[in-house]
Amino acid sequence: MLNQTPVALCIIGDEILSGRTIDANTSYIANRLNQHGCTLSEERIVPDIYDKIIKAVNELREQNEWLLTTGGIGPTHDDITADAIARAVGRPWEVHPGADELLRAYYQKLQLPYNEARRRMATMPRGAILIDNPISTAPAFAIENIIVMAGVPKIMQAMLENALPLINGGAIKHSLSITTNLGEGTMAARLTEIQYEFNMVTIGSYPQFPAQNGVKGYKVTLVVSGLDKDTLAMAMQKIETMIQDLNGEIL
Amino acid sequence: MLNQTPVALCIIGDEILSGRTIDANTSYIANRLNQHGCTLSEERIVPDIYDKIIKAVNELREQNEWLLTTGGIGPTHDDITADAIARAVGRPWEVHPGADELLRAYYQKLQLPYNEARRRMATMPRGAILIDNPISTAPAFAIENIIVMAGVPKIMQAMLENALPLINGGAIKHSLSITTNLGEGTMAARLTEIQYEFNMVTIGSYPQFPAQNGVKGYKVTLVVSGLDKDTLAMAMQKIETMIQDLNGEIL
Repeated sequence: MLNQTPVALCIIGDEILSGRTIDANTSYIANRLNQHGCTLSEERIVPDIYDKIIKAVNELREQNEWLLTTGGIGPTHDDITADAIARAVGRPWEVHPGADELLRAYYQKLQLPYNEARRRMATMPRGAILIDNPISTAPAFAIENIIVMAGVPKIMQAMLENALPLINGGAIKHSLSITTNLGEGTMAARLTEIQYEFNMVTIGSYPQFPAQNGVKGYKVTLVVSGLDKDTLAMAMQKIETMIQDLNGEIL
Repeated sequence: MLNQTPVALCIIGDEILSGRTIDANTSYIANRLNQHGCTLSEERIVPDIYDKIIKAVNELREQNEWLLTTGGIGPTHDDITADAIARAVGRPWEVHPGADELLRAYYQKLQLPYNEARRRMATMPRGAILIDNPISTAPAFAIENIIVMAGVPKIMQAMLENALPLINGGAIKHSLSITTNLGEGTMAARLTEIQYEFNMVTIGSYPQFPAQNGVKGYKVTLVVSGLDKDTLAMAMQKIETMIQDLNGEIL
């Protein structure tokens, strides 16, 4: 049976860790990867510090089929990702002739100087494969099993579309969910039995406290996910029966 | 000069990695830590798999003063955090008498059975220190330099308040930001000079593409952060001068 391809994500930069920005790229990437037959297997967020980037990148790429990175490939002093990735893979960090040409033409058209800072966006580890950026030209790139993208969501999303063909996808994971007013503690024993019976699916239990403190307003969403739709449907049928047996409501 | 206390975060569970939920806890924790004189130094998101949790927890706690974890401490089969943390620190995983008492009284008051599943929320590594949960009673806990919290934002936030007194905070980081229509490539050389002159602050450059594709609607937010407010103000003054010199607008 086909499996999902494990892909890790490394978010590089101080933007998320400082609390300034809520990360929306993870959710987008996870969903898009799944449509491609991949699973987002793990993630790390590291600051703009060479040692931390290199360590995270090397561990994640060794333990996963592919590693995606976001952030740190712009023209300013805090954009150290391309250099750090070159160090991680032990290759020279240099101007990529193809990227250089693209950027030179782009800034010429915009009538802006193609200065040293902008040329920084053409620097990559030697041997990098360019990935087209239809939004702002400065390309993403792939080196070995690492795909290096921008952090700006719109640009990242466009780069990801152009990067996915490099990744051999596997099976697509499907999921079904149901929400109930029953407590997790009321359902837990029965859920464990269902999980045990359907060991090819994963049952997740997510409590929410939407309105006020205490148990009022409490509800639980159960998410069943797996590769085979029929098995999912059977597991969900068991969950619905469980909710009825325990006198719960489906919300 | 006082430094910030480095604190790492490990988010445990499939909720974020599946793409189902956008993580808002990181931003909250980062901001709250900073007010307490700590910096969120790095983060990992791992699935509900023992080996991945144990590896992440042990690496993060070794490399940071404290490690916070969120998620996986409920009563259902997918809540394996307490057990995994016990394995990570090499201690027995057992019912904590104090937590057991709290939960027994809570469910008695709610007239709900205190069953085996609910009692799972009283299990911890031996020697754990309880951290009060005013929302739903099941406590957070600290063991060695690890603080284990729930993933539900409202509960996590309440637990974090009660956990912060355990952490010796250092200095508080302040930040100033300014937004301009100038391109990053236009400012980069001058920004590098300013960063070099003010090496006690960190200057981050964050481009945004708010409206449409291409360069239209492009703007850049520059964020200066550091421990000393006067130095920040001086660096920001230099940045304002730079924007004027380069004929940019402050937005």
